[in-house]
Amino acid sequence: MTTSTKFSVDEAVAVLGRTPATMDALLRGLPDIWVRGNEGKDTWCAFDIVGHLIAGERTDWMVRMRTILDNGDARPFDPFDRFAQSRESQGKSMEQLLDDFACLRRENLVVLQALNLQQDDLARRGRHPTLGVVTLSELLATWVAHDLTHLHQLSRVMAHQYRDAVGPWSIYLGVLQCAGHSAG
Amino acid sequence: MTTSTKFSVDEAVAVLGRTPATMDALLRGLPDIWVRGNEGKDTWCAFDIVGHLIAGERTDWMVRMRTILDNGDARPFDPFDRFAQSRESQGKSMEQLLDDFACLRRENLVVLQALNLQQDDLARRGRHPTLGVVTLSELLATWVAHDLTHLHQLSRVMAHQYRDAVGPWSIYLGVLQCAGHSAG
Repeated sequence: MTTSTKFSVDEAVAVLGRTPATMDALLRGLPDIWVRGNEGKDTWCAFDIVGHLIAGERTDWMVRMRTILDNGDARPFDPFDRFAQSRESQGKSMEQLLDDFACLRRENLVVLQALNLQQDDLARRGRHPTLGVVTLSELLATWVAHDLTHLHQLSRVMAHQYRDAVGPWSIYLGVLQCAGHSAG
Repeated sequence: MTTSTKFSVDEAVAVLGRTPATMDALLRGLPDIWVRGNEGKDTWCAFDIVGHLIAGERTDWMVRMRTILDNGDARPFDPFDRFAQSRESQGKSMEQLLDDFACLRRENLVVLQALNLQQDDLARRGRHPTLGVVTLSELLATWVAHDLTHLHQLSRVMAHQYRDAVGPWSIYLGVLQCAGHSAG
């Protein structure tokens, strides 16, 4: 099976709608080793990752979709603050973050689905501040892949807590060979 | 925060007990693009990954724990058949696999917790057919990291389906830079 050639909003929403419950099932009530453990100085723990997903719901995906629909590629998107969560998550529990994420995502998907986007809409162009011209379907696909990037990161950060505990098995565990692949 | 130095069965069970619900939240009812899409010839799709986790519950983790407790390092573990799922999942739906995985994992954790393993037990040694001497705590930690390795793989396989759809954003998405890190 090769990669899909035609983007479908329903297929994207199928993943976007499941991410909060996935994070919830994995993280709610977990001991601190898993919630607060990171990969070393200036890296993210599970708590930071969920905070970052919340920031995306508030300031990235829907705002950029609106910019494309209202302004096309005449006006570049505002850059996304990848560190907003360090301020906004302060004093909250993981459980509060999971609730916030679920609530914001649900609201955003209601708005997205109410727009009932057609193929013409999906082809509309916007302007990314560094990447240049992008389309609405690329933005929506990136929203999905961004969820998956952070699930990928989360599994790696959690596995890192057992880097020593697994002993000689570490060579067989792919996630322990992964050094991350981006700044985010 | 550095990696944990003392292995705790409760911390391990906290993750092991959540993996079936995590997979369920992510995968149940998803369109085929996400369930059946793989990364190319001879690679695994989500359906294969859940089948592999089931095979581990049946033939790997608990059997090896029993071998350590009964035989110590006198008798090497039987090798783990990493391809058993292609036979055993045949004709089943993803939903059946998710139910089977949840049921087997729940049963295995009941048995594990009933053993009430102490520090002395966790230090007991077994013999891996290729890695040599390992301890019971290393086996249990590997069970956890193996779940996380396959969650890591699953997020990567799913993201691969949108490799083209995200357009120029692909360079910012860490999961799309990940080429996998092991055979499993």
